[in-house]
Amino acid sequence: MSTEAHPEPAPENARPRPATGPGPAREAAEGALVDAVVASFDACPDPRLKELMVSLVRHLHAFLREARPTQEEWAAAIDFLTRAGHLTDDTRQEFILLSDVLGASTQTVNVNGTAHGGATEATVLGPFFVEDVPRVPLGGDLSFGAPGEPCWVEGTVTRTDGTPLAGARLDVWEADEEGRYDVQYDPARRSARGSLRTDEDGGYRFWGLTPTPYPIPEDGPVGRLLRAAGRSPLRAAHLHFKVAHESARTLVTHIFPEGDPVGREDSVFGIRDSLIKRFERQPAGTPTPDGRTVEGTWSRVRFDIVLAPSEG
Amino acid sequence: MSTEAHPEPAPENARPRPATGPGPAREAAEGALVDAVVASFDACPDPRLKELMVSLVRHLHAFLREARPTQEEWAAAIDFLTRAGHLTDDTRQEFILLSDVLGASTQTVNVNGTAHGGATEATVLGPFFVEDVPRVPLGGDLSFGAPGEPCWVEGTVTRTDGTPLAGARLDVWEADEEGRYDVQYDPARRSARGSLRTDEDGGYRFWGLTPTPYPIPEDGPVGRLLRAAGRSPLRAAHLHFKVAHESARTLVTHIFPEGDPVGREDSVFGIRDSLIKRFERQPAGTPTPDGRTVEGTWSRVRFDIVLAPSEG
Repeated sequence: MSTEAHPEPAPENARPRPATGPGPAREAAEGALVDAVVASFDACPDPRLKELMVSLVRHLHAFLREARPTQEEWAAAIDFLTRAGHLTDDTRQEFILLSDVLGASTQTVNVNGTAHGGATEATVLGPFFVEDVPRVPLGGDLSFGAPGEPCWVEGTVTRTDGTPLAGARLDVWEADEEGRYDVQYDPARRSARGSLRTDEDGGYRFWGLTPTPYPIPEDGPVGRLLRAAGRSPLRAAHLHFKVAHESARTLVTHIFPEGDPVGREDSVFGIRDSLIKRFERQPAGTPTPDGRTVEGTWSRVRFDIVLAPSEG
Repeated sequence: MSTEAHPEPAPENARPRPATGPGPAREAAEGALVDAVVASFDACPDPRLKELMVSLVRHLHAFLREARPTQEEWAAAIDFLTRAGHLTDDTRQEFILLSDVLGASTQTVNVNGTAHGGATEATVLGPFFVEDVPRVPLGGDLSFGAPGEPCWVEGTVTRTDGTPLAGARLDVWEADEEGRYDVQYDPARRSARGSLRTDEDGGYRFWGLTPTPYPIPEDGPVGRLLRAAGRSPLRAAHLHFKVAHESARTLVTHIFPEGDPVGREDSVFGIRDSLIKRFERQPAGTPTPDGRTVEGTWSRVRFDIVLAPSEG
């Protein structure tokens, strides 16, 4: 169906809201409907699916009965989801972005957090993770020509008991200094993105780019929502990591440069204190750890990663 | 991004749920996040948008903190929305269908209901409304070859004070006896669908098809959700109406045949007592109101429509 609706401010002649709540007959009808929808899941054979759906239905209806959207507002929400769906593909996830800016991604990380004796904290995945990633050797450069200040990143991957995790896989990805991920230029492009494996001491090292703040993609319905809401689209500067080892719980996280101006105004609420790291700027001409010749300044950061034990 | 996730029952080795709630530190972090997301809308220039977003955020986070989805469950939800978006086009609306089966469409109708001195009740739009509709004359046949028992539908369109609404536009659409809407055969097909205008007495009449129950479209993520939940996909038999007149509030509704076996088990919770009408079956050979020759049985129903005054 085609519809003109979109999440712009309500027209000035919008129906005035009643001063009092719905009458008792309507409240009864609204409540009876919620009960009927919840009851429709009575025969659900999967207890967890039932639990999720009943909770979702109760909270969705609580929102509808509190916010009392007009039919036009409901149609605008349907249109919003439709546009998000049409924009989403293998390299661009507008629903993840929506979840991110509503804080739902960070809250999901929170509710799944488990205090495992010093394991590194997780944060959101974001909308630009892709499965196929160029492999780089230890000490290699995963910038692949993306513009930005070179950044030497090193550290270890260990278990919570301190033992090293040899052969752990790190996937790393980030925006370049223009504020774009590789796939935003072309879905097939891979730059400022790579994967590598730790050595037998659990150590890793690579060249990336010093992260800089950038706006979330603003050309879709989520960007339009932020503009309408007077919200900044800026993400705090960060470098994404996904770290996996067969004997450990996979970690999805970022590190954030200390002193970044966006900081806690991060549009996806992703910052955690423990993930703020000092990226030390090196003057031009400073010898590099691997002898690489770098024009101009570069930075370096150490990030030691601790993985929790796996779930099984 | 590609993901294998889908809304199937959780695997048996899913992480066990903790017996106690989150500890105080985590509850504090979860609560602080909700406050931060709500506060991010402080500068929203449109008070109604702010109200809607704050309510949405609070209820969304209440759901997340209660249901505590795993990362896999969150990914399955993202994937569900993505598939719904990819399936949705101008003649197939999977998000409306999702809203329908969660009762959100009916609840939106409820919260917008206004007791306007006897105006006909509204119900859901459904996912198969289309803007371009064949025009039929009064007394015309809008089946256009769709299979089903002929049904003569007649009535008046009036204001709440009883005065007739001449030239009111009625859009009518329904599934055929195979349980399909025209656009489900081909997006360009138009049958069992038409529009007409009332005469100077506010009267209307047309030939359609006797409605029969049918399943909601089951080939998408919503159909899969209903199957996983052990829920019937069947809609109670119905005939859709959208009725408009410049001096009145547009009405979106259906009429339901009395005695339909699906009845209150309607998968979109759309039935309302006032919209149940008696469709009287006529034996083969019974003279028709307009002299049309009909092979076999036919039915007839009267539906007098009352429109509320417009909002302005």
